[in-house]
Parts: sequence; structure tokens; C-alpha cells
Amino acid sequence: MLDLDSIDAEIVDARTKGFPPGVAPLPLAAIGAQRWNLLRGDLPFPQAVIKASALAHNHAWMRDFTAATGVLLAPHGKTTMAPQIFAQQLAAGAWGITVATVQQLGICVHFGVRRVIMANQLIGPREVTGVIRLREHHPDLEFHFLVDSVAQLAMIETIAAQHTMSRPLTALLELGVPGGRTGCRDGAEAVVVARAIAASPAVTLSGIECYEGLKVTGNSEEDAAVVGALMATIKSVALACDRADLFAGPAIILSAGGSAAFDIVARELPMQLSRPVQTILRSGCYVTHDSGFYARMLEGVKARSGAAWQTRPGLRPALEVWSRVQSRPETGLAILTMGKRDASFDIELPIAQTWLRPGLDVAPRPTPDGWKIEAMNDQHAYLRVPSGGAAAADELGVGDLVGCGISHPCTTFDKWRMLFTVDDAYRVTGAIRTFF
Amino acid sequence: MLDLDSIDAEIVDARTKGFPPGVAPLPLAAIGAQRWNLLRGDLPFPQAVIKASALAHNHAWMRDFTAATGVLLAPHGKTTMAPQIFAQQLAAGAWGITVATVQQLGICVHFGVRRVIMANQLIGPREVTGVIRLREHHPDLEFHFLVDSVAQLAMIETIAAQHTMSRPLTALLELGVPGGRTGCRDGAEAVVVARAIAASPAVTLSGIECYEGLKVTGNSEEDAAVVGALMATIKSVALACDRADLFAGPAIILSAGGSAAFDIVARELPMQLSRPVQTILRSGCYVTHDSGFYARMLEGVKARSGAAWQTRPGLRPALEVWSRVQSRPETGLAILTMGKRDASFDIELPIAQTWLRPGLDVAPRPTPDGWKIEAMNDQHAYLRVPSGGAAAADELGVGDLVGCGISHPCTTFDKWRMLFTVDDAYRVTGAIRTFF
Repeated sequence: MLDLDSIDAEIVDARTKGFPPGVAPLPLAAIGAQRWNLLRGDLPFPQAVIKASALAHNHAWMRDFTAATGVLLAPHGKTTMAPQIFAQQLAAGAWGITVATVQQLGICVHFGVRRVIMANQLIGPREVTGVIRLREHHPDLEFHFLVDSVAQLAMIETIAAQHTMSRPLTALLELGVPGGRTGCRDGAEAVVVARAIAASPAVTLSGIECYEGLKVTGNSEEDAAVVGALMATIKSVALACDRADLFAGPAIILSAGGSAAFDIVARELPMQLSRPVQTILRSGCYVTHDSGFYARMLEGVKARSGAAWQTRPGLRPALEVWSRVQSRPETGLAILTMGKRDASFDIELPIAQTWLRPGLDVAPRPTPDGWKIEAMNDQHAYLRVPSGGAAAADELGVGDLVGCGISHPCTTFDKWRMLFTVDDAYRVTGAIRTFF
Repeated sequence: MLDLDSIDAEIVDARTKGFPPGVAPLPLAAIGAQRWNLLRGDLPFPQAVIKASALAHNHAWMRDFTAATGVLLAPHGKTTMAPQIFAQQLAAGAWGITVATVQQLGICVHFGVRRVIMANQLIGPREVTGVIRLREHHPDLEFHFLVDSVAQLAMIETIAAQHTMSRPLTALLELGVPGGRTGCRDGAEAVVVARAIAASPAVTLSGIECYEGLKVTGNSEEDAAVVGALMATIKSVALACDRADLFAGPAIILSAGGSAAFDIVARELPMQLSRPVQTILRSGCYVTHDSGFYARMLEGVKARSGAAWQTRPGLRPALEVWSRVQSRPETGLAILTMGKRDASFDIELPIAQTWLRPGLDVAPRPTPDGWKIEAMNDQHAYLRVPSGGAAAADELGVGDLVGCGISHPCTTFDKWRMLFTVDDAYRVTGAIRTFF
């Protein structure tokens, strides 16, 4: 299990966004005992909070989904970059953690993760040297990175030749699609790269990887066809590599799967080869889910996954950003203490879901139809609130709190160095540290 | 001067994005002595770096501009949230620092800033209490925040009544514009709020504020008219408040000025009143400037500021994000190790300006026409590189480095906890810590 003692012991103070001003510094692990309540005004705003019940539900949901479909999970750690959440994911049965960079790998290893996939090309002398040192220092570290060109492989080999390695590096061949991101564009090119890896003095071929998420639109039938075709390509390349005996190691890894169409991957990717196959999903956003893009994508996952997954509760949005109305400068407009520094805006703007009048309401009320965040500046949000003759008690006022769901958790997490976890009554139960 | 010892002494290691993996932890102040060179491959990528010469130039430029125009400067600290840069700004003559939140105020006070404007409404019990405690704890702290409604003022008074204060809070009346953000929408409403502040048991009126930047388009004549009209409104409200004897304190603050049209503010806002007037600009982005939005806006500033400012060198872009080509998966496309986690994308995508082949080039080459970043994912950028039959040595290849200018420095700074400063040869001269 991970060693989170240094996080628990870290002294947090009001220099950290979200920590209440005027409160004495505290060890992070003592935050849950402070009995702070977001709705009662104990916290400054904005606040990004994680609903503990939804997070636990999502851990269990994905554990059940991967168990039912017989695949492994290396959740993408880039979403949260929170070792405390990594520990929960591993405790819920995750095989390992996925990362995007060598820095993120370093965070994982520092806290005790020992199975890591970097779903990205390893490139650069500092990065290659860093990986070699980490692996030599931690003989129990299993680390796979992507290779998609002979040029990249040659650069790794040049650096590796300057070091003594007790075991070779292990690489996943990346397949891509025309018009896509990284990855070999067709099977023939892929097999050329696979042969180069298999012949490398420094690197062995541990499996095949792709990322299907960029082509997913939410049209369930189209997504099934497009992702299915990509999985078929992976399997055909895997078979060719296996027949040519290019894989090394005790098992062959086949990995794909973001958070939008992981069900298709889980259904289509598993296959038999000459040695054991580990089919590994890398979904990251499932863990907090969201109230926008991934909420829509989940409908496709459920629709494709049969009655049992349609009737049971799906993933729940666990991440909310709360802010306070600082001004009602015109009819129909409220300005909130939240901006581009605080909440995702790359797919869509935050979604105003609930509001509360401090001192009057004991629980958040759902927002009326038509309330919509129309713009954000660095530190402000513009909430359009058509009044339509609401009574004064129902008119959003200066000082009221607004709770927003977000779309795309990754770009909210990276705006916070610490996020509070809350129970369903918005009592603070603890704090999560991020390492971006 | 500010006390930066705690920053200098902070031990940095590879858990911090940008720090080289495999290098032993170091005190931040020792980084400049490591003789790292970005171009030589000593650093991992991506890297956001600050060119020290451009930063120094911009400090001097703005010092000269404010001196020439006779205004004070409280640069917006939200841009960098870097006390080391605040110290440079104060050393270059800045009157104080502007912030957007009480957390940012706390950072300023922690490191020794004693004149702060919060260009935002003070609202919320924790925030008001935090401000009162800071002011009581630091009798030399001058702190002004915005008030734009009687409702907001009443909430502050309710909290303030629960505390013993040795001196009243000081507020700037905020003026806005119809269709704008915060701020009273007309002079009559503004005077009502000003009278309420003047009559408050807890708050005194220290001046008038507005933010003209949201209406600036880059059309120099239009901008001059729109911003000029807003300045005229401020002055008329200031005159009315002064005649009604609503201001308290030794001086009256008049403040406006982002980084796009600060010249108009400096020209139009100064005025005579019954007591000394402090005209304070709050420009933040000038300090690193940029290669996009503010670069375009500066053309208007220069055009409006007369021959002397047109002929001398203008602000220089000090912030660059460098990344490495990790894949050349298709003709005309390079994928870079940089994404939405690393560089601004809210106004426009990063601008590929220079590139370098490690081991071959000793200095960056300018990018050919047509190279353009077309998209970014969380951790990747898509650089379109029309080749047009370039020789192999001039074709961007896997492992090459690409230097990008950015548009809107605020949203690049907040993605980095530490940024290296570099000299003109990209040798690392030190590191800047941010507090977002």
C-alpha cells in the first residue's frame, strides 16, 4: 500500500487556496476533525470539493465493471495527481496507475506505486536517465512507456548505452489512427517498430497500446464501430507480433480505454495469445466523473453494456466547485467568486446546479431552469439568472452560494493544490493533496 | 522589502513539475548555481521559462511609463502569484500589489507586502474575518477592497460588528458599465453606495475603482473613446463624492488599468480633488507581457502614447513554454510534450516561435512560416508543420525542441508551481515559486 504519511503530516495554512484565512496552520490529516461545513460559511470561496460518497461509489462501480468484464485497470493518474486517490484506486483493485509524464511517474514511485504505465512516448535525455535510475533504484518497479517510431527508440538506446541497467526497459508499441495523435498509423509500420524494439539492446516489447478516446463522439453506434475497428487493428498487430515472437516478458499487455468508451475496449480488446494477456483499461475521469462531457458519454457506456448496467446506478459526479455571489449588478446577472483559475472551462463552462442562502437554507436548493454560467474571467464567473418575477426569497442575492458541476475533471483538479472532501451534508471530512 | 528567505530555503525535488528527474533535491536558491541549460537537454520537458532580460526590461519600462505619466502602480499579483516577482515590482517603484482574493492578500502579507488593493468585492464571513485579523495583526497594512452594493456592505458590517477593530476597513467604490462585470452601473447608484459606505460604522470610503479592460478591443480609436468615457464617469462620481465629503483618509485613491489600455487610464484619470489624489494603475500582465493578446494591445498603447513611446523598445515577451517533439506520426504533423496542463489556451493556443535540434544547433532557429499549434489535449500539442519539400536537416524531427510564446500569461503561470528563469542563452539563472 502507499505511504501517505508525508501528505498527512504536511502543515497546511492559508497560503493554500481554499484553506480558511485566519485559521492557524494544521497538519493536513487534522482537517477532517475541524468540523468545518461548507454550507455554514466556515470556508472561503471558491472551493472545489469532492463528495466522499460519490467517490466511494465510483471506486466500487469501476471495480465491479472491470471484474465483470475481466479486464485490469490502471487508472490515469493525470486526472487527479492525488496519491491519496491513487491509494483508494489500488485498494479497490486497480492493477497499477497510468501517468502522462516522467514527473508524474516520479510522484507515483515516491508514494509507493510499483506498477505504472506512461501512456506517452518516453523521449529526452533527462527523462530517459530519470526512468533508468528509478528502475534501478526500485527493482520491484514495473514501468511501461510508449514507442511509436524507430527514431524515438534510437534516442532511448543512445541514452541507455551510457548507463548500466540490470534489466531492459519495457515498452508498449503505440498504434494510432490517421488524423489522430501519436501512434503508428497502420499495421505494417507498427510491425516495423515492433521488430526494432524486439531487436533493441535496451528495450523489450511488453505489449501494445492505443488511445481510442479522441474519436469518441457520444453517438453510441458510431463509437462502437470506430472503437471496435481500432481494437481489431490492435489485435491483428498483436497476433502478428506474437507469431513473430517479438514480445518479451511473462505476459503481453494490451491497453486502451479512456473514460468515454472503456466498455467497448473491455468487450473487444481481450484475446488469446501464446502467453498470458493482460488487458488493461486506463480510464481516469471515472473516479470523480463529471456533470458534463463524461456524464453524456456514460449514457453510451450504459446503453452498450446491457440491462444490468442500465438499471444499476451509474457513476456519480463527485467534483463540485462552489462560489459566492459577490455582485448582482444588473437584472438577470450574478457575478460569482470563481473563474478560470478555479474550474474547468476547456470543454464547457461550469454548470450551476444548486444554490443556498446562508442562514436561511439548511440544504442546497436546485437551481431554476435557465440559470447558466455564460462566461468566466480569470477570477469571476457570469451567471445568467432569468428572474421571471420570482419572489424576493427566491431571487439569487449577494452573499448566496452557488454549487456548480464541472465538465472534464482533469482541468479542475490541476487548479487546486488541495481539495476538501465533504459528506452529503457538505461537512468537511478531509483533504486531498494534488501534485501538478 | 519582502522576506523571501522561506522561498529561497525551500527544498525542491522532482515531485515539482520541471525539476529534472534523477537530480537530488536542492534548495530553490541553489538552482541558479547548477549551470543547467534548457537547450543542452539538462531539463525535462515541458518547461515554462522566464527570460530574465525581458523581465528586467519590462520592470524598467513600466517604471518609466508610470514615472512619465505621474501615476502609481499596484501591479495585479494574480498574474504571477510569485512573491519574488512582487519584490522586483516593488523594487522598481510599485506603490503596492493588487490581488483578486483574500487568499492572495494573505500571500502578499505573509511575504511582507504592506499596501494591497483587492480588485474584487470582499464578501463572506471567513473572508471578512480573515481581513480584519490580518489588519489588526499588521497595523502597517494598508488594504483596500471593492464595494458595489449596499447589500454587500451590510454583510461586511454584520461580521465586523462581531470583532473589535482598532481602525475601520477601507473600501473603494466600484463603478462598472452596463453589460459589464461588477460595479455600480451609473453615477446615481454609485453615489448611493458611497453615502452608505461613508455612513458605515465599520468601513470608510478610500476611493473609486473600475476595470476598463473588458471593453478593450484593440481598435485604438474606439478604445480611447470607450475607456475615456468611463474615466470621465469615474471623475464625475469622484467629484460628487468629494463635494459631499464622503471620502475619509489622507488621500483619495482613483484606480483603474489592466494591461491593455493603461495608457488611456494614465492620461485621463488623474484629477484634482479637495485632498491628495493617488491615481493607481493595476496592470499585471505587462510584467512578462506575451506573444499574443497583449502583444497586439501594446500596439494601441504605443500608437496612443506619442513618438517617444513609439520609438523606444516596447514591452518584451518574457514567458515561453518549451516542449519536445515526441512523435511525427504523419506528414505535416508533430506531437509535442506540452498540453492544457502546461500552457495558456484560453485566448489562443501557444505560438510556435523557435525550434532547435539538440546536438546540432547551438541557438534556436525561427520557425518557418506556417508552423502552427492547432490543438492541445491535456498533455499533448498538435503542431502543424507544412513541409513544402524542406531538406531533411530542416524537417522538424522526433526529439527536436520547440519554443512557444503564449497568449495571456495568467493562465500559463497558474499551471506551474515553479518556473525557471533563464538568460538569453537559455542557461537557468534561478527559479520563481508561484502560490496559486
